[in-house]
Amino acid sequence: MPRTAMNVIDPAVRRCIDECVRCHEVCLSTLPYCLEQGGRHAEEAHVTLLLDCANICQTAADFMLRGSDEHGRVCAACAALCQRCAEDCDQFAGDEVMHACAESCRHCADSCGEMATAHA
Amino acid sequence: MPRTAMNVIDPAVRRCIDECVRCHEVCLSTLPYCLEQGGRHAEEAHVTLLLDCANICQTAADFMLRGSDEHGRVCAACAALCQRCAEDCDQFAGDEVMHACAESCRHCADSCGEMATAHA
Amino acid sequence: MPRTAMNVIDPAVRRCIDECVRCHEVCLSTLPYCLEQGGRHAEEAHVTLLLDCANICQTAADFMLRGSDEHGRVCAACAALCQRCAEDCDQFAGDEVMHACAESCRHCADSCGEMATAHA
Amino acid sequence: MPRTAMNVIDPAVRRCIDECVRCHEVCLSTLPYCLEQGGRHAEEAHVTLLLDCANICQTAADFMLRGSDEHGRVCAACAALCQRCAEDCDQFAGDEVMHACAESCRHCADSCGEMATAHA
Repeated sequence: MPRTAMNVIDPAVRRCIDECVRCHEVCLSTLPYCLEQGGRHAEEAHVTLLLDCANICQTAADFMLRGSDEHGRVCAACAALCQRCAEDCDQFAGDEVMHACAESCRHCADSCGEMATAHA
Repeated sequence: MPRTAMNVIDPAVRRCIDECVRCHEVCLSTLPYCLEQGGRHAEEAHVTLLLDCANICQTAADFMLRGSDEHGRVCAACAALCQRCAEDCDQFAGDEVMHACAESCRHCADSCGEMATAHA
Repeated sequence: MPRTAMNVIDPAVRRCIDECVRCHEVCLSTLPYCLEQGGRHAEEAHVTLLLDCANICQTAADFMLRGSDEHGRVCAACAALCQRCAEDCDQFAGDEVMHACAESCRHCADSCGEMATAHA
Repeated sequence: MPRTAMNVIDPAVRRCIDECVRCHEVCLSTLPYCLEQGGRHAEEAHVTLLLDCANICQTAADFMLRGSDEHGRVCAACAALCQRCAEDCDQFAGDEVMHACAESCRHCADSCGEMATAHA
């Protein structure tokens, strides 16, 4: 494996970056699905939460990629937002796309929660 | 004044958006100045803090612009980052550009701190 | 006026940054309005265009704030996106909020178009 | 494999998103390395180009994740920026970290170039 700047990032931080990037991707790509479905899927509160979650996940990932020593603070906010977004996605019982989005949010919430505790 | 979506935003929130946008602009435009100066101005910790501050300010502004009810959490993180960035800029005594950056950070820290308290 | 890093930015670039920031703010704050209205306002193509426009406006502003000599390229993309978003907003005849959004997009398209031509 | 919103994205677009995300990660994590190294690594033009490249890669990825039909335009700008960043990183002969960054930029430039041609 070639030596890149990313290879020197602490493995636990690296995993958290991966979860944040994944959750950002899933939330943002779930947005057009929700808008197409309409109804409860396209309600303002739900769409806003998907965008909030995608936004803070990217911000948390960028803090970690820059090697910022302030990432714990942003990861704490990210964990809380991801948790709320997961719960909001859980209300769409039987919808596989929303279920997958909730799962991504929960994984990211767990990972960011650990990061926030370790770097409080 | 024409009616725009921004006109219906609560005035206190509007002021906080303005401070966040201003602080984002000042931090980001201070970056090339620091890199040109070199030395302590271009040290990794300082440059990272300028980028962190610009990043979280934009994120906080975007939460408020979207009308998110989760902006308090992000404003709390933003207030803390702005405070740290202001202190870091204060170390460049006699440097007018860094002083102006510190002032923008302090105004944004105050405004975001109030927002975080009001929407905790 | 205190000397800040922003004061040394070329006045034409400064005006373009202001238009981009304004257009980003208006598009992003028009989003919750559209989602509340529902119907044609909340259609996927329209919401996506508002988010696209807000996104590229912020990106163009950030290139100019960093003093990048590659901003012409991004301003060209921004001008085209703003023009499309303006036309999409124009379809909501008699809707003052959408009209104001279209106006912001047109101002930004003009300003970014000039910047793209000057720095091609 | 669970059905997620990302699974329905066209495979060619999906690969381009992956390249953009990877290039964003590598450029942003190369930044602290460059600032630590100092000298030519930390020169304003080089640091600005790394940030420009990271920024436009994220923007291009987000356009594709949202399913925007305007992503071709942004991918064209991204391909050009990535190409310029790769050439700038190539000047650091014998530096494995910079070489890896150049490679990521070239892969992303190729992928975005194809996307821009296909969706012009």
